[in-house]
Order: sequence, then structure tokens, then C-alpha cells
Amino acid sequence: MSAILKDPLQLLIAAQQPGQSLAQSFYCDLAVYERDLEQVLSRQWLVVDHISRIPNRGDYFLFDIGNESIIVVREDETKIGAFFNVCRHRGSRVCLDAEGHKGAFTCPYHAWTYNLDGSLRSARLMPADFDKGVNGLHRCHVRVLEGFIFLCLAQGTPPDFDSAYQPFADWLGFHGFANARVAERRSYSTAANWKLVVENFIECYHCAPAHPEYCSVHPPELLLAYGAGPGSGPPEAEERFARELADWEVRARTLGHPAGFLFSDAADSPHLRTLVRLPIGGTHKTETHDGEPASKLMGQFKEFDGGETAFVFNAVSYLLAQNDFAILFRFTPRAPLLTDVEVRWIVAGDTEAGRDYDVGNLTWCWDVTLKQDKKITEDNQVGILSSRYQPGRYSEHERRVSTFVDWYLRQLA
Amino acid sequence: MSAILKDPLQLLIAAQQPGQSLAQSFYCDLAVYERDLEQVLSRQWLVVDHISRIPNRGDYFLFDIGNESIIVVREDETKIGAFFNVCRHRGSRVCLDAEGHKGAFTCPYHAWTYNLDGSLRSARLMPADFDKGVNGLHRCHVRVLEGFIFLCLAQGTPPDFDSAYQPFADWLGFHGFANARVAERRSYSTAANWKLVVENFIECYHCAPAHPEYCSVHPPELLLAYGAGPGSGPPEAEERFARELADWEVRARTLGHPAGFLFSDAADSPHLRTLVRLPIGGTHKTETHDGEPASKLMGQFKEFDGGETAFVFNAVSYLLAQNDFAILFRFTPRAPLLTDVEVRWIVAGDTEAGRDYDVGNLTWCWDVTLKQDKKITEDNQVGILSSRYQPGRYSEHERRVSTFVDWYLRQLA
Amino acid sequence: MSAILKDPLQLLIAAQQPGQSLAQSFYCDLAVYERDLEQVLSRQWLVVDHISRIPNRGDYFLFDIGNESIIVVREDETKIGAFFNVCRHRGSRVCLDAEGHKGAFTCPYHAWTYNLDGSLRSARLMPADFDKGVNGLHRCHVRVLEGFIFLCLAQGTPPDFDSAYQPFADWLGFHGFANARVAERRSYSTAANWKLVVENFIECYHCAPAHPEYCSVHPPELLLAYGAGPGSGPPEAEERFARELADWEVRARTLGHPAGFLFSDAADSPHLRTLVRLPIGGTHKTETHDGEPASKLMGQFKEFDGGETAFVFNAVSYLLAQNDFAILFRFTPRAPLLTDVEVRWIVAGDTEAGRDYDVGNLTWCWDVTLKQDKKITEDNQVGILSSRYQPGRYSEHERRVSTFVDWYLRQLA
Ligand code: FES
Ligand code: FES
Ligand code: FES
Repeated sequence: MSAILKDPLQLLIAAQQPGQSLAQSFYCDLAVYERDLEQVLSRQWLVVDHISRIPNRGDYFLFDIGNESIIVVREDETKIGAFFNVCRHRGSRVCLDAEGHKGAFTCPYHAWTYNLDGSLRSARLMPADFDKGVNGLHRCHVRVLEGFIFLCLAQGTPPDFDSAYQPFADWLGFHGFANARVAERRSYSTAANWKLVVENFIECYHCAPAHPEYCSVHPPELLLAYGAGPGSGPPEAEERFARELADWEVRARTLGHPAGFLFSDAADSPHLRTLVRLPIGGTHKTETHDGEPASKLMGQFKEFDGGETAFVFNAVSYLLAQNDFAILFRFTPRAPLLTDVEVRWIVAGDTEAGRDYDVGNLTWCWDVTLKQDKKITEDNQVGILSSRYQPGRYSEHERRVSTFVDWYLRQLA
Repeated sequence: MSAILKDPLQLLIAAQQPGQSLAQSFYCDLAVYERDLEQVLSRQWLVVDHISRIPNRGDYFLFDIGNESIIVVREDETKIGAFFNVCRHRGSRVCLDAEGHKGAFTCPYHAWTYNLDGSLRSARLMPADFDKGVNGLHRCHVRVLEGFIFLCLAQGTPPDFDSAYQPFADWLGFHGFANARVAERRSYSTAANWKLVVENFIECYHCAPAHPEYCSVHPPELLLAYGAGPGSGPPEAEERFARELADWEVRARTLGHPAGFLFSDAADSPHLRTLVRLPIGGTHKTETHDGEPASKLMGQFKEFDGGETAFVFNAVSYLLAQNDFAILFRFTPRAPLLTDVEVRWIVAGDTEAGRDYDVGNLTWCWDVTLKQDKKITEDNQVGILSSRYQPGRYSEHERRVSTFVDWYLRQLA
Repeated sequence: MSAILKDPLQLLIAAQQPGQSLAQSFYCDLAVYERDLEQVLSRQWLVVDHISRIPNRGDYFLFDIGNESIIVVREDETKIGAFFNVCRHRGSRVCLDAEGHKGAFTCPYHAWTYNLDGSLRSARLMPADFDKGVNGLHRCHVRVLEGFIFLCLAQGTPPDFDSAYQPFADWLGFHGFANARVAERRSYSTAANWKLVVENFIECYHCAPAHPEYCSVHPPELLLAYGAGPGSGPPEAEERFARELADWEVRARTLGHPAGFLFSDAADSPHLRTLVRLPIGGTHKTETHDGEPASKLMGQFKEFDGGETAFVFNAVSYLLAQNDFAILFRFTPRAPLLTDVEVRWIVAGDTEAGRDYDVGNLTWCWDVTLKQDKKITEDNQVGILSSRYQPGRYSEHERRVSTFVDWYLRQLA
């Protein structure tokens, strides 16, 4: 086909050089943003929260992405439902509060009422041939795995969940997430394209210059070797750290804890998952200021082993788990240059704030780090708006960013 | 013509199903919004205010719609003028204050001065061949009927005013609007497309769930039967209410008051007018909290008959008249998702605040109702932005909304 | 070529009538704005500030235009450098503070470090074949003339600086700007297209109606004759003022001061420069409230001669110089309807605030005038958004506006 009739986005994709950051349009244009939502993110299983947020029948919360609002509700003891928050009558939002408890969903406009399973229970005065059976709320695909709620916004059949996420189940189970609870929720909305937020999160090339607190917990030599996940550092750095790693792995496995590198998807994977367990480094038992425990041991941990598990579910859903607490990160586009960064600190289910943990201690490392990342990423975005921005070469330490970019372009193509 | 060369808007119009709400684009897109202003609303005679706002020669106020500002001015004792607030020199706004008094309009930029009839009085230093005669302010069509000022923004010949609005004259005269005054002005700007604001206003399907105060004044059975105007309710509801209605009509006519259903345009009308007089319902003399009078009887009313007249001038101009006061509603687009809702409470000309009426008592019912409608309509708009919004079926009680949508699509086609 | 395949902007340009203001699109459209930046303003040498702002090696400030940020830095005692503030790695802003002092520019993201000459000094962990030599900051063309810093954002070769600006050197030198300093900086950001800001600045047709303070300093008959520069007034006004002018020129030349009309470009010039020296008028020695000196005489002035020099470098860079102080104006687009108006009051280098001048006295005339112009220009912009705006005829007194518009259309064509 002649170039003039081709989708301009395909021309942009074709022009992209491997090992370089994306061209300006990918980070700025409304048309690309809309394609990202429709074509890239609607094919992912997004982790949106922990099930402890909706323990009882009728408890719900809203998940917002782009212009969408999804109601996530506990339909009954064993079932979680998810529905587009759009009335089938004239389109009003059905649920207005960000979270709450409902016996049924009654639209605030004309009181059409939907059951907790989304089916239309009542609609006053409708014509005789109106079929309630086909006027339930539009379902959003939802799955729960070891306490985490996953949504997929695909219009049709979503990617297979089990083959993608069952491999995480054992380690999630070991960490005891099914019986965990959320100790703290914070958000760090960032005035930047979602891909810049992701790229910032998946490399630690910037850790030494930008995150002194984080680097006081995680030793620089380890960050250099594994900061962006195994295989992401320069080989000589990995070699230098290999002995400490080997010793730690022996110790963790002796204790019966998971350790090492379970898998890490390449750019041709649909999900871009990673699962790995590594030492925090140094003498830190957990990711606190003094390295001492922040809360009760979770799941099957019987003693602290100084390890941290990275559950990378996909490009926008991450879980970093210590022995005694974990942090869930979700990165959600809201506009071309606006991304929600929502974070949950998760602890064992039988803990109590004040008694078992101190929220300030729990959140210290990542709260300061996320505020720094917000600033860095916003300054990255404004720079990219310049006419003189051009894709730059990645360092050895940004392999995962390079993989992410490759993956993204394949999804978009 | 092949589909690819057709105006995409015509394709959208053709795809619209009768009896359903409009497709997303009609409520969201900038291109539709611009066509709405140019093609639909510029053909209407918009009621903008009551003449008591500008009693003396040189008194003026500004009416804003979209990006337009119109100067409405009293040219002399008998004549009202209306002009686009755009200097013929380099385009400055000529009038800056929203209302005031002027002997002439002097542009704040280079002092070109226009007479109250819009003609250019002076323009310093212009070339010898400059023709002041063709450089007056652009006129906007204006008419006054029984105290109400109507504008039409059409570039050329406007629709005939007299044939359209003379039919309202007798009833307006009976209510005494020519000698009325405005007791209160309030605005309820709404972050939604103008058509959602209109649709909300012309149906009472939502009254029971959303407006408890309004329903404490107007009995639910009456709202069900006539809430959206005569013929809008389900036939069985109208039947149930027929007796009360018949009794009230006899009483009103015995008193010499207008009553009943004078006319109501169908979707093929250019104006979509309605004129009807119905009982408020129950024992209410007027639309107050306790049902007792709020002000002096207006016009030719000699005693309270518990009736209310609905003057529907067109889709965006409404007047609801009690025996002792009336409310003028105007819905004016300012941006695709922003609509001005301007309201005037009107009383007899010889009244005085504090002595003859209490503003809180006068405004109670509709102030609370309009605040509820603003919220409802904004929640409707955000729902419609979802990818899962789809046109929904109208109930029996939304016949007038269905008629409005049909009318709108014909105007746009 | 058939009209349908032509650039719509070329059709707009062709439709423009001489002697009239521009069509609406030129003042409002994003596409025109982007062309203005790329095609018109990127070919100009923009005066951005006075060199006294960065006296020492490593001192820098940022200049923002559109989406660009330019670092202007003193590389060494004799050299000023200018660089696009965009990291060659992943595009972050390199400098975040609006001004400061740096030994080198270290990107806040991954710490790539650039020397003061923009060359890349260090980039950790880059692949072996990474060439630092081609990864310096993108240079922006920069020149300094008699203390003023000029930038040109052209991608390739800029217009020749010396032939364009050397003609200003003598008079700038006479005023002593190379040894001057900035006494005050203020900004008057204006919600209007940059061309409306320029048009407002280059005509004094509006002075009498809009600027009473300015007119209390500059006699109306002089403003009428020369307010928009020599040759801009009606011939009869110039004649009336000719005698006062001739007397003043004799006096100025007797003192050895420059006087009269050195040059003024026509619309076919690439730069649209003017250089002229005229009397302030009346008995004013300088542009103060009482006409008395505001600061020490600058440069080679030995006594006050009541003259004012207008250095018009181009359409967006102006310098108005009294005997004892000068004012630099720069008009910089930031968005289609947003323009930065940045102003510097400049005094002799050996002065001190409080001792030699009072900032309030220095800024009085133009501070009040610029606030008035901001308001006027914003009201002009909103008027032009109306569907009824149409290009208007220029007066005899707006010849320079007409020349500017002609020049602009030629640049854009
Ligand atoms: S929009 Fe929900 S019931 Fe009407
Ligand atoms: S723009 Fe109104 S007089 Fe010039
Ligand atoms: S973006 Fe500047 S060093 Fe990475």
C-alpha cells in the first residue's frame, strides 16, 4: 500500500529504532493515547485492588481508567463482579461514591435498579416489549487470584487468565495474600503519559542520582546488578554481586522460602510478566529505614530472610513483597498527559495499626521515592514536548525499558 | 453518494434509532456542538430576559452564547435593540460589563463610537473612503412579546416571529407579564452538553427518585400523568387523574382563567412549542413549601385557582407561571460540555421585596430542584463518555424527550 | 493546483485584503499557531534578556517559548551559550530552576552530565559503541550585541545576524547598554494570540482613549504624529509637529546625541526593524510622572535632551531608551491564546536601587500602561472569537500594524 494511505501510526511504529526511547507522538498525542487504551491496555488483566477492600456482600469500589468507571462489587461470599458504571437507560453513572455498600444499584436518575450481579431488576414504565433480560449492566471481565482482583476491559473474549496468572499462585500463596489486608492507600497522580510512568518504574538507572532514601535501603551494587530485575544490569555488576546472591539463595531455600528467578517474559509475550525473589541487600530484614521488621510475618514465613519478591503481573500492575508487608502499584491512564499512580500497603490480615505496625514506618521508603518519581516523570514529559526531543539510546541498565518499548510497539502494531 | 464522501454527521443521524437516546458523539463532540449552534440554535427565537431589566433608554445587558456576546439595549422608549458585541474596527468587545447604562457604545480600544441603534457615530482618522454607513455593529434579530425579549442569531432572515409566538400572547397577557419585574436571578451552570440539560428538564420520569421537594408540591400521580406535559404520561395514569383535572378546569374557566391544553408541537415543527395550563395538584395555591401565596396575584387573576401555566417557547426557553409569580428558564450552550442554566423569578411589577414577597419562599422549590438537576445531569454526562454507553430505550414517560430528539435530528439533518 | 488540494492556510492568506486586520483563524487556530512558531518566529533573532543577568561563568537562565525551554548560560568570560533544555538520553528537562548557577548541567533523571558548552561529559553504563561526541545538548543560535542576548530557534542556518543587527550597534553603544544592568523584571502574561499583543504595541491609535498616564507624559499631538513610529501618523499631524521636531533634532545633534529616523523596514524585510530617536515631547526629560530624571545618565549622555530612542529589533523584541533608563519588551507565544509579555527596566551599571533610582518611579509609566494593554488585548481576543468578527479597516494611524500584517503573511506564505 502506498505510504499516503497507511495509518500514520503504523508509519511511526515502523520508523522506531530498537534500543531507543519512543518518538514524541507516542508520549503526547491524543490519537495514540486512545489506541493505547483500546488496543494495548484493554488486552491486559489489570490488578486493581485487594479483595479485603470489599469483604461483605454488596461492598463495592469504583476503578477509573480513561473515561471508564468500573464498579467492582462482592456479589456473594465467593463471587466478585465488575460492571461498567453506565446505566443502560440514558447512560448516567449508576454509582457515584468511590466506594460503599449497596443492596442493589439504583441509578440516581430514573431509579432503574440493578441486582448485585448486574442484571436489571426493575425499570418503571417501560414499553411492553422492553426486555429487561438484555438490559443488565455491561460486564467487565474479572478474576481473583490469591486476594488480588484483576480486571480486563476487553469488549470480547479476554486473554486466558489461568495460563497467564496461575504461575504466580504458589508464591502469592506463600506470602499469604489471600488473608491479607490493606493498611494504607495513597495516590501520586502524575502529569505525564502512562508509558513514562511505567518506564520510570521499571529501571533503576535513575536510583543513584534520584533516590537517596531508596539507595540507603538497597545497596547500590545490588541495584546496579538487579535494580531493573534480573538480567537488567551490566554483566560485570551481576558477576560482582553473584556471591552474595548465591549465599542468600541457599539460606532462603534452606528455610523453605522461594528464591531466585522464576520467569521473565520477553517482548513477544502478551503480558510482560516477571516473577523473581532476591535479597534486599545488606542487613535489612525488610524495606524500612532501620531495616528492622515493620509488621508481623506474612503467610508461610517463619523468620525474616531479607528477601523481596517482585510480582510483575504486566506493564501497569506490580507487587513488591517483603516478608512482613507488600506494596501494590497500579498505573492507570486518565488523559494523554495524566496518569493515576495508586499504591496499597498490604499487611497480614490479623494485624492492627498501632499495635502491629506503624503506617509511617511501613510507607517511609516508597512514599518518598514515589514523590521523587512523580517529579522526575513530569520533568521528563515537558522535555519530550520540545521540538528538539528525539529518541535517545538506552543504557545497559535500561534493558527492561527497552523490552517494554518493544512489547508496547508489538501490541500497538 | 458513496458513504466515504458523506458527512460523518449524516451517517450518525441515519444510524439513530427512534425511541432511544442519542449516540455518544451528539453529546460529546466539538464538531456536533458547533453544528448545534450554527444550525439548530441559530434558527430559534431564544428568550433571554424580561424587559424590566432595561427600563430606561441606554440600559443594556449582555447575553452570552457559545463564543458570542450580544448587547441587548433599550434604544428608546419603545424599541429594544440587539447587537453582536464585536467592534467593526479590529474586533474588540465593545461592552465589557455584563450590564449597565450607556449614552453610546464607545469601544475601549480605539474609541470608535456606536449609537444606541448600533450605527457608527465616529471613527477617528479613518481613510477618506471609509464608509461609516456600512460599519455599524452587526444586528441580532430581536423581538419583544408581553415583556419577554427574544433573540435570533440567524445570519439571514430569521423564522417568522409572529406566526410562531403570537399564539402565546393572550395567556402571557392574562398573566400580566408586560408589567412584571424580576425578583431574583440565579444561575446553575452545568458541566454537560446542552441537550442533556434540556432532556432533563422536559421529563418528570426522574422526579420521584430525584426531587423529593418538588414532589411534595406536585402530587406524584399528577406528575406521572402530566409531568412532562400533557400526553406525556402513560394513558392509565392520565385516566386515573382525569377527574381531578376536569373538576379543576371547570373551576378555572368559571373564574375566567385559561385552562387546559392549547397546543403542543410535534417533532416536525420548527419551534417545538407547548402551551398548557394544569393544576399544581392537591391544595397548593402556588408552588411554595406550604402551598400558600408567595406574592401578589399577577395580571388578571382575581383569586388563586391552584393552576400553573407552562409556556414552552422552544427547546431552550421555558416559562412556568403560577398565579402570583413565574419562573423563566434559559439553557445556553457555552462549550460542548458546559451549559449555562439561567433562571429568573418574576413577580407583579408593583411588588416590593420584603413587603410583598420573600425571596427564599419564592425560590425554594426550584432552587433545590435545579441544584439536584445540575448534579444528575453532570453524572449523566460522565457516564455517556464511557466506551460502553449506548443509546437506551425511552420509557412511556419520556415521550417529550423522544420528540425533542426527533426534532433535534431533523433540525441537524 | 485545484483548490481542494491546496493547503487551507494558503487559501486564507490569498483571501486576505490589504489594509485590514487578519481573519479569525490567524488569531485563534492551533494549526496557525504552530506554523507561526515553526515558520515565522523561528526565523527571527529574539532578544531574550540583558547579559547582566548572567555575569559569571556557569550563571544561566531559562527562556521559554511555545513548548521549548532554552538554557542561556555564560560558558566563559567572553562566551554565551544557548541549548535546548532537553536531555539527549530520554528527554527530561535538564535544568529545572528558572535561573541559577551551575558548574555543569547534570540531568536530574539519570545524571547524564553536560559541560557548560553543552557537550556530554559523562553518561554512565552506556553501550560500548555509544558516541558521546554526537550526544551534546542541541545548540540554539545565540549572539550578543551591546549587552543584549539574541536567540534564533532555527533548525538550520539562521538569518545573518551581523547584517541585520550591526546597524543598531552605534546607537546601542551610545546608550551604554554593554555596561548596563537590569533594575526590575516584570511579566504581564496575556490571554491572547501573540499577534494581537504585537499589534497593540505598535500603534498608538489607542493611546488617547486607553492610556491617560502615558498621554500625560507624551503629548497627544506627538503621539498622533509619531506614536506608531515615524511615518505612521496622518501627514497633517506630522506637519503640525514638524517644527518642534526640527528644533529638538538641532539641539540633540548639537549635544552630539543621535537624533531622527535611521531606518524602518518595509513589509518585504525579513526582520521588520526600526531605529529612530524622537523627543518625548513637552518638558519631560525622561519618561517619569514629573518628567524629572529617574536615574543616572547612561552611556555617552552628558545632559538630558528629552529624547527617546526606539530600537525595534523585530516584531517581538523592542527596546525604548530614555537618557537615564531603558525598557526591554519581549512578546513570546506560549499557546494559541496565551502570550508572555516580559519586561526589563535597564539602568546604568554603576547605579544602586534606592540611592540612584526608585523602582516605583522608574516603572510608573509603563507598568500602568502594560496593565491597560493586557486588558485591552484580552478583550480584543474574545471579540475575535465571535462568528460575526470580520477583518476591519485600518486607520491612517495604524500603518505599522498594516505593515506588520503584510510582513507576517509574507513570512507565513
Ligand atoms: S439513566 Fe439510569 S435510570 Fe435513567
Ligand atoms: S477595535 Fe474597537 S475601536 Fe478599534
Ligand atoms: S533523561 Fe537525562 S539522563 Fe536520562
